Amino acid sequence: MTIENIKFNSDGLVPAIVQDAVSKEVLTLAYMNEESLQKSIDTRETWFYSRSRQELWHKGATSGNTQKIVSMAYDCDADSLVVKVEPQGPACHTGAYSCFNETILGENKQNDNRFAIINELEEVIAKREAEMPEGAYTTYLFDKGVDKILKKVGEEAGEVIIAAKNRDHDELKWEVADLLYHVLVLLREQKLPLDDVLSVLKERHSS
Amino acid sequence: MTIENIKFNSDGLVPAIVQDAVSKEVLTLAYMNEESLQKSIDTRETWFYSRSRQELWHKGATSGNTQKIVSMAYDCDADSLVVKVEPQGPACHTGAYSCFNETILGENKQNDNRFAIINELEEVIAKREAEMPEGAYTTYLFDKGVDKILKKVGEEAGEVIIAAKNRDHDELKWEVADLLYHVLVLLREQKLPLDDVLSVLKERHSS
Repeated sequence: MTIENIKFNSDGLVPAIVQDAVSKEVLTLAYMNEESLQKSIDTRETWFYSRSRQELWHKGATSGNTQKIVSMAYDCDADSLVVKVEPQGPACHTGAYSCFNETILGENKQNDNRFAIINELEEVIAKREAEMPEGAYTTYLFDKGVDKILKKVGEEAGEVIIAAKNRDHDELKWEVADLLYHVLVLLREQKLPLDDVLSVLKERHSS
Repeated sequence: MTIENIKFNSDGLVPAIVQDAVSKEVLTLAYMNEESLQKSIDTRETWFYSRSRQELWHKGATSGNTQKIVSMAYDCDADSLVVKVEPQGPACHTGAYSCFNETILGENKQNDNRFAIINELEEVIAKREAEMPEGAYTTYLFDKGVDKILKKVGEEAGEVIIAAKNRDHDELKWEVADLLYHVLVLLREQKLPLDDVLSVLKERHSS
């Protein structure tokens, strides 16, 4: 865990790309000098060097919006850093989630927790199963039972295949969403935690 | 679509964070001068200014590994850019998917994020596609192409159905994991961001 490989520029700084470890959105480009890099490593929170104020700066020291460091890497030239963090609040001094909010080209979509919707859907599906509110599609699926749910899983997989062959992004995103939703309903019906599935992926990936 | 707001530094440069629009991994930190920024906007491919060679540099001009620009944004200080791209091959001159391959910190991975493995798998799949290492199963899938990937999606969906009918948790968690993995490979092959799929689920859920 040495920083002697890092090449600081003529001002003694290295740019640090701060990225949300979960959503993977880029939050800020800030600069570190050797001291702030060392402090970041030691404290596992981000410290920068403010070029305007010419001083060390512990991100969140006054606002409370600190950034817990998950990982830190440098590039092939050893002259820039990617710092993956768990932000404890907005990254931008304006109070925005990310500093990058001005679009030049395209649509710069940001998603502060890309998987939050999966958590929400799991909860809704569990509620539907418990409460069985009339008229809800999920209630209908649980009412019909496992064979109906499995028919839908097969059907949606077929529709994913067709959409991919058509190379149609709109069609494909709808069909993959349908497939994921019905798989979540199936997991609930089978009382198999999604975490068990994710653990399988994790074990395989690390082996 | 004006670049007059951008604040170039005393060398006439602005740092540009190049991010994979699909996997959201940071690929490179490079620099643009006004001319390369304008060329990037006009051509929708990345152009930089090489500080070592002191010349304009069209990424991929010699290697073929161009980067198609999906969106471009600047930050609250208007002195750095995020450029989201679809890379047509490795970003790094070493042939690696990303330039950021040297770890300073990070063995202390946070596992309290249940979906971290999905982010990791996305990154691994994107790397395999860019680098095509021999012997890797994912390389084999990309090498065989979309028909093979879709055959696997269909096969795994069938195995999910059988496992659920057997009400066998061990079998089912393996088969659902297989299905999710092959769907992620498919999304990469189709250049469809997982975020687009998650957005569909979110829109439906909130409507």
